[in-house]
This record gives sequence, structure tokens and C-alpha cells, in this order.
Amino acid sequence: MKPIGLVKTEATEEELKDGRSVSEIILSKDLEQGLEGVEEFSHLFILFWMHRIPRSKKMVLRVHPRGCRDLPLVGVFATRTPYRLNPIGLTVVELIERKGSTLKVKGLDAADGTPVLDIKPCDPWGLDKKIRVPEWWNRLEERSKKKTKASSI
Amino acid sequence: MKPIGLVKTEATEEELKDGRSVSEIILSKDLEQGLEGVEEFSHLFILFWMHRIPRSKKMVLRVHPRGCRDLPLVGVFATRTPYRLNPIGLTVVELIERKGSTLKVKGLDAADGTPVLDIKPCDPWGLDKKIRVPEWWNRLEERSKKKTKASSI
Repeated sequence: MKPIGLVKTEATEEELKDGRSVSEIILSKDLEQGLEGVEEFSHLFILFWMHRIPRSKKMVLRVHPRGCRDLPLVGVFATRTPYRLNPIGLTVVELIERKGSTLKVKGLDAADGTPVLDIKPCDPWGLDKKIRVPEWWNRLEERSKKKTKASSI
Repeated sequence: MKPIGLVKTEATEEELKDGRSVSEIILSKDLEQGLEGVEEFSHLFILFWMHRIPRSKKMVLRVHPRGCRDLPLVGVFATRTPYRLNPIGLTVVELIERKGSTLKVKGLDAADGTPVLDIKPCDPWGLDKKIRVPEWWNRLEERSKKKTKASSI
């Protein structure tokens, strides 16, 4: 596996988490042709390598979602924790614009300098049905909305 | 990167493509704890390694979606073609059931024996907005619906 590009962002960790930050994905110049037509999609899947996550010797298999101890302890594959066996990040972003081999996107929760592994178009395939999530997921969502509201006052 | 499990399916290539086939994802027994609570999600993202795709020496950067020559030539990152720089597959599947370290899922377009790299819960994060797709995507979707209808007669 080789990175196809890098993330460039000035957002803080907090801003990255709330999904409103704007980042650039800078691809190698020789891959520009691979982006042709990508601007016809409003949303993209970005796959990236979470290079800053320290690899522990013993794999943790259960976590509290986002570290909230009042939420149930669940398996890592039931969460988006970065502490996973293969630290591949996956985020749906909104494509703002493409300029040559650079994409400007909104909502990418990857740190500055993160290696990007792949970009895929986001389409309704498999997603056109109603999605069911656990109760803890809705509680987390509620909290993050409150936080965003508070920070924008 | 290490596989966390393998895909087991008896579906033909055609059946895999139409999104209705049922597959098993068999994880290593020692990872069972990592799946706890996953059954509370109706849909999951499966990341897999497209191990059967031959690596060509020269990277192709533009393709006709699904090989249809009447559809425009677009960049690989605007399509889900398996011929990509890093052959990581990504599919949203419907979770039918979990039994220990085995998941039964619907709609996984990965061949029998495919190494699975990661499993992530599918939640509405970033997906709650209207998704815009190119005109060619809708044409492909229309074709695949017709095919499915024809094959079920």
C-alpha cells in the first residue's frame, strides 16, 4: 500500500471532530487524471491511514464509545475508534471543489499530514434503506449537537 | 496490515454484483470480543483486500464505469472500479445475524476467500444530507435494476 496523497488542514483536533472543518487533500500531480469527474459527486468516502495512533502491544477489543464511561463497553468493530487492528480511517466528506489534483472537502476528521489511501464516490448503493443504530449512538449524537451549538454562540 | 478474517460465500460473480447475495465473514476466534454490540447496527461498512485483482505495471487512471463503453470515461477515484492504486474494497452491507465471531451479511460484493481488513458501523454521520451523483450513475443503477428484475422472473 502506498499513499495517494496527503491531508492538509489547519483545524484543531476539536474542530476536526465536530465535522465542520475544511481540509485539502493533495494528491500527487501524476494522479490528477484519476480525479476526473469526481466533482459530479457531492460526497466522497476518504480512506486514510491513521499514522499518529500508537500501536500498543496488546490489542484492546472493547471500548467505551468516544471514551465516555457512561456509555456501554462495546467491541471495537461496533465503533469508529482509531484504536483498531488495521488503523484505516473512513470518513464521508462533502466535496467543496476540485482544483487539478487538490480536493477541498468538509468534514474530514483526519489530522494534518495524514496519508490518504483511497478516494471513492459516495452513492446511495446499499444506503437507500433506513439505517438502525444503537441507543448509545443517538446519545453521543445528541451530545455532539449540544456542543456544536454551544461553541457557535 | 493483517486480515482480521475471511469472506465465505457460494455466490457467483454475477450474484455478488447484484447486491442480494448472502455471505459470511469469519473472524479469528480471538477477535470475537471486538464484535460485541455490532448487532445493534443494521448496516456495516466492510473493508477488504481485493486480492484477486492483478496488479498491472502501468496504472490505469480513467475507466468507463463498470466497463460500459457508452458511459463517459472518468477517473478511477470517481468510480468503484477494483483497479485502483490501493485495492481496498469498501461495501455497505446489511447485517443479518452474528454468531460468535461470524457475521452473516447481505450485499457484500467480495469473492470467496477475500481477506477482510476492517469492520465499521454504518451510521448516518455525514450521510444525513442529500447525496448528489452523476447522470451516468443513475443510468447504471437503472440498468442493474432491470437486470435484477429480469433475473427474478
